[in-house]
Amino acid sequence: MPSFDAWTCPAPLRDYQTIVMGHGGGGKLSAELVQHLFLPAFRNSALEQLGDAALLQLEGARLAFSTDAYVVRPLFFPGGNIGDLAVNGTVNDLAMSGATPLFLSSAFILEEGLALDQLGLIAATMGAAARHAGVQLVTGDTKVVDRGHGDGVFITTSGIGLIPPHVQIGPHFARPGDVVIVSGTIGDHGIAILSVREGLEFGAPIESDSAALNGLVADLLVDHAAAIHTLRDPTRGGVASTLNEIAAAAGVGIRIEERALPVNAAVRAACELLGMDPIYVANEGKLVAIVAREHADAMLTLMRNRPLGSKAAIIGEVTAEHPGVVVARTGIGGSRIVDMQIGEQLPRIC
Amino acid sequence: MPSFDAWTCPAPLRDYQTIVMGHGGGGKLSAELVQHLFLPAFRNSALEQLGDAALLQLEGARLAFSTDAYVVRPLFFPGGNIGDLAVNGTVNDLAMSGATPLFLSSAFILEEGLALDQLGLIAATMGAAARHAGVQLVTGDTKVVDRGHGDGVFITTSGIGLIPPHVQIGPHFARPGDVVIVSGTIGDHGIAILSVREGLEFGAPIESDSAALNGLVADLLVDHAAAIHTLRDPTRGGVASTLNEIAAAAGVGIRIEERALPVNAAVRAACELLGMDPIYVANEGKLVAIVAREHADAMLTLMRNRPLGSKAAIIGEVTAEHPGVVVARTGIGGSRIVDMQIGEQLPRIC
Repeated sequence: MPSFDAWTCPAPLRDYQTIVMGHGGGGKLSAELVQHLFLPAFRNSALEQLGDAALLQLEGARLAFSTDAYVVRPLFFPGGNIGDLAVNGTVNDLAMSGATPLFLSSAFILEEGLALDQLGLIAATMGAAARHAGVQLVTGDTKVVDRGHGDGVFITTSGIGLIPPHVQIGPHFARPGDVVIVSGTIGDHGIAILSVREGLEFGAPIESDSAALNGLVADLLVDHAAAIHTLRDPTRGGVASTLNEIAAAAGVGIRIEERALPVNAAVRAACELLGMDPIYVANEGKLVAIVAREHADAMLTLMRNRPLGSKAAIIGEVTAEHPGVVVARTGIGGSRIVDMQIGEQLPRIC
Repeated sequence: MPSFDAWTCPAPLRDYQTIVMGHGGGGKLSAELVQHLFLPAFRNSALEQLGDAALLQLEGARLAFSTDAYVVRPLFFPGGNIGDLAVNGTVNDLAMSGATPLFLSSAFILEEGLALDQLGLIAATMGAAARHAGVQLVTGDTKVVDRGHGDGVFITTSGIGLIPPHVQIGPHFARPGDVVIVSGTIGDHGIAILSVREGLEFGAPIESDSAALNGLVADLLVDHAAAIHTLRDPTRGGVASTLNEIAAAAGVGIRIEERALPVNAAVRAACELLGMDPIYVANEGKLVAIVAREHADAMLTLMRNRPLGSKAAIIGEVTAEHPGVVVARTGIGGSRIVDMQIGEQLPRIC
C-alpha cells in the first residue's frame, strides 16, 4: 500500500489543500480533480475515454458501464425525488453512449434516524422508474451511518447496457458541419431544486424534468444511427458544460444561437430574478445531440412528436474555427464565449 | 410517481419508524429491510437470488454484477484504508459467484474539507489494489456534500465479472454431506478497526486482512470447479451470518466445530477482553467454501499452499438435520445454536 509520505498532492489543483463544494460541480474544478488526482491513480484506456459511461468489450459484446452518486437536497422536490433521479440519471448516462440500458445496481447510504416511510417511498419510486425505463434493479447494498455523518439518504446507481453493433456515438465524433439539437427546455431541474430549497415562488410551479431518455434515443437510432455522432445529457453545469466537454474532446468549435435555446417562461423569469444563466443550469431529462446536417430536420421532427422531445430545437452547429471553444450569438447580435464554470452555481443538484 | 399517502411502511419492520444502525449490520434487521422494503419495490428474479452478485445473461455470456457502499470509520486503519477495502470487497463479491472480476466503477461522496492528500492516498491505494487484483477501474463519479453532511469520504464500487461456462456456484447449491472450509483466521478485520477506533492496544498489532480473493478462487476452480457448491466472503456479521444465510438459502443444516475455527492469538485475546465472539466479527480477505466431501482434502492442501489460504481449515459439514440452523459443537463437547445477530456488534466496519 502506498504510504502517506510516498504520495504527494499533484500540483495543478489550484493550491487547494482540501475538497471544496466546487469539486463536485461538474465544472473546471471537477475536471481537474479527475485529471490530476483520479486518472493518475487508476490509469487505463477505458477510463481515459472519460465518457458518461465506459465502453467495454466482453465476449464479443459491446457493453456500456456507468455509475453516479446522488446526493440531491432536498430528497423530495417538485417533479420527483432522489429515487427516480438515481434511476433516470444512470439510465440516461448509458443511453448517451447509444446503449440499451438493461441492469442497474443501487447502493444506499442511510443516515440513522431516516424515516422508514420516506425510504419506502423512495424505493417505490425507484422501482416504478426502473419499470418505466424498462431496466431491472438486480443487486444492491445498504449501509447505515450514525446521525450527523450523512444526510438522510445517498444513493449510488450503476448500470450496464448493450451497444448495438452499428452504433458509434461519443463526444470525440462531433465534426465541423454537424448540427446541435437540444431535446427540450433547459434549466428546469436546477431551478425546481433551487425554488424548493430556498422557498422561492415564481408564480407557476417549476417541476424537475427528471425522465429516462432511453426510449427517445432508441426511436432516433432506428433511422438515424449513423447520423448521431454525439449524445450527452446536460446535468451538472448545464448545456454550457456539456458543449465545452464535447468541443474539447472532438477538437472542434461550437457556435450556438442564444435565442434558439428553449427555456420555460417560469424558468426564464426565475433565472433573471436570480441572476443565473439557464445554459449553466442542470437538466435531468434532456439530451444534446450532435448530428449530421442532412438528418437534422428529420430528427427534430421525430423528437417533437415525442412527449420527451416536444420542445426540441436546433440550437447551433459545430465549426472548424475556434477549436475547444463554445461561442454564443447573443440576442442583440453580438457574440460571447460560453466558458465552463470553475465551480458550481447550485450545489447538490443531483 | 407514488405519493406519500399511497405508500405505507410494510408491517414486519419490528415497529421501527426510522433507520437504526442495526439496519446496516448485515444481521436480521438488514435482511428484514431488504425483504420487506426493497424487494417489494424492485421485484425481479435476478434480485431475488439475493447473492452477493447478481447473475445475468447477456448475449450468451454469464455476467456477475455487484455493488457495495463503503463507509468504514476511520478511513485509515492497520492493514489498509477505505480505498483497498472498496476494491477488494467488490472483487470478492464477484469472485464468490465464481466469476472472473474484470471491471470496476467507483463513485465518491466527498465531504467538504476532506484533505486532498488523504483523497490522493486513497485513490492511489485503490489503483494499486485494482492492479494487484487484475481488474480495471473504468468509470467513476464524484459528488461533494457540505461539511457536516458526510464523513470524509464514502466510496461505492460496482463490478462486472464473467462466469466461466462450467461454473455453478451459489448459496442454494450447498447439500448435506458437503464440507465447510474457511480460508484462514477469522475476525482480523473487525478487531483491527475496533482497536484503532477505540484506541485499544492488545500487545501484538492486529491488522485488517483486506485482500482480493479472486486469484485463490481461480486456483481452486482449475481442478475443483464442479466440487465447489458455495463460496461466500464473511464480511459484516462474520462467519456466523454467512453460514446462516447459506443454511437458509439451501434449506440445509450446518454443523461446525468451534475448536476448528482458526483465530489469531491476538484476535482471540481481544475478543475475550471485549466479550465478543470472533465468529460474528467481520473479515475482508477470507472465504467460506462449501465443497463436495471427496475434494475437501485436496482443496485444503491447495489453499494452505497459497499465502491467502495458509491458515485454511475444515470447520464443519452440511447436514440434512435442522434445516436453516447452524449448530456449533463447543470446546467442552456441548452444542449451541449459532444464530444470526439482530443488529450489529461493530458499526461501520466496511
